Amino acid sequence: MDFIKRHRVEPGKAAKLKSISTDDTGDVKNKAEAKEITADLTKEIRDLQYRMFVEQKQSLLVVLQAPDAAGKDGLIRKVLGQMNPQGCRTYPFKVPSEIERAHDFLWRIHKCTPAKGMVSIFNRSHYEDVLVVRVEDLVPKSVWSKRYNIINQFESNLAAAGTRILKFYLHISPAEQLERFKKRLDNPDKHWKLNAGDYTARDKWDAYRESYEDAIEKCNSDESPWFVIPADNKWYRDASVAGIVHQTLTDMNPQMPPVDVDLDEIRALYDREIADQQE
Amino acid sequence: MDFIKRHRVEPGKAAKLKSISTDDTGDVKNKAEAKEITADLTKEIRDLQYRMFVEQKQSLLVVLQAPDAAGKDGLIRKVLGQMNPQGCRTYPFKVPSEIERAHDFLWRIHKCTPAKGMVSIFNRSHYEDVLVVRVEDLVPKSVWSKRYNIINQFESNLAAAGTRILKFYLHISPAEQLERFKKRLDNPDKHWKLNAGDYTARDKWDAYRESYEDAIEKCNSDESPWFVIPADNKWYRDASVAGIVHQTLTDMNPQMPPVDVDLDEIRALYDREIADQQE
Repeated sequence: MDFIKRHRVEPGKAAKLKSISTDDTGDVKNKAEAKEITADLTKEIRDLQYRMFVEQKQSLLVVLQAPDAAGKDGLIRKVLGQMNPQGCRTYPFKVPSEIERAHDFLWRIHKCTPAKGMVSIFNRSHYEDVLVVRVEDLVPKSVWSKRYNIINQFESNLAAAGTRILKFYLHISPAEQLERFKKRLDNPDKHWKLNAGDYTARDKWDAYRESYEDAIEKCNSDESPWFVIPADNKWYRDASVAGIVHQTLTDMNPQMPPVDVDLDEIRALYDREIADQQE
Repeated sequence: MDFIKRHRVEPGKAAKLKSISTDDTGDVKNKAEAKEITADLTKEIRDLQYRMFVEQKQSLLVVLQAPDAAGKDGLIRKVLGQMNPQGCRTYPFKVPSEIERAHDFLWRIHKCTPAKGMVSIFNRSHYEDVLVVRVEDLVPKSVWSKRYNIINQFESNLAAAGTRILKFYLHISPAEQLERFKKRLDNPDKHWKLNAGDYTARDKWDAYRESYEDAIEKCNSDESPWFVIPADNKWYRDASVAGIVHQTLTDMNPQMPPVDVDLDEIRALYDREIADQQE
């Protein structure tokens, strides 16, 4: 199944989130089939990522944005975090620290972009600076409205340096979010995720949706595409993101570098040492 | 099995690597049993690490040192890298860059030590500055010989800040290393690991062993212990390191933080919204 084609927002087009299904499951029949697809793809992603790590010519940046409880953590645990840890780093972007706030909004982001061969996974990102910052009125419109262009230039610079960028919006319905919030109440292992702001943010659902729609429309290009992932079903969320990452790495087609040593010469050295030991 | 007791180098004692077996397998019967032990421990490590991540009061630093082909990469892939990627980062320390060389030897290291809640895995470390640097004569003895004390003070500072430190030396025999080098020649996926220096470093095996013995003896304490892991059998290497990490995290005993919101109040809010929707 062509997950890219199905979930990619066409550049230049508006992203009407209200008209995009949150529980679409494409051609995937059910949870069992999705889990099988995800397991197979995850294994292949690992192989491709290893080649990219060794090749050291390209890099991959995965940006995750979503309402609370949409499943960023689960997606990282079950799919993205299955990559080889030596070639992959996850960066959470929380409320900026004092030193981060003393710089431009991309300063802390730029430090975490992937070097050649590497994968960076952003759990939230510079997009918060046109999302929460806009909805909560943390800076004036004259400031945040200029950031779309700045983001485009920044991402364009990364792309020019060989970084492939994939931006995912995990799309859940308010009802599904409420369901998950309720489940957290009954699971002591998830209580740490609760905070008083969770519920009140729900009142601003429409304002967030509009901010997302603007960000997706204004910062969406062939070199830095947005995908809207139906995320009411965790199994489809995992399968579709795995599919998109897999298609992208396949297209990047990383190659093991050529050998720059004389294999026969080394083999002869080894054989000689072994012969010496046996004498 | 008490892997800590079995493989820990007693502080104040010399580490006579030549008299420590490289193919000891303790009470572990065979590969199949080891794999089972490792799988069970890895799962429990993941749970404990998640608690530490959420608790945000302590951190863990794992230092891996070893001759080439002793299995650092495999150990990271199969055991340490199985931790939740959001709470765990792997740092490779290669030949220092120009900017790194322009600072003291701990400058690049300190930037990678774990924040509260986090795990850092060092693939090589500051110990290279009393190992390869000493054997290859990269700085005079008057410089490297002072570093043992500096390292002790540095690690003591980390420990005082709540970081548990585990230092592993993966101990293989020269014969096993040669065997692995040979296997790499026949596996195109491993050719990128070959370099002309692999073989010539073997001539300095004894000099490296002495440097390791000194480092282990001089920088070994209750708060920053060294473990010598018999690594000729990959399955025992994995099981014993998993065992030591597991025992350590169990001893650290991380706790989920108490809930700081009123669960009943939130539950009432949710129920009201659901009731409203149904009207």
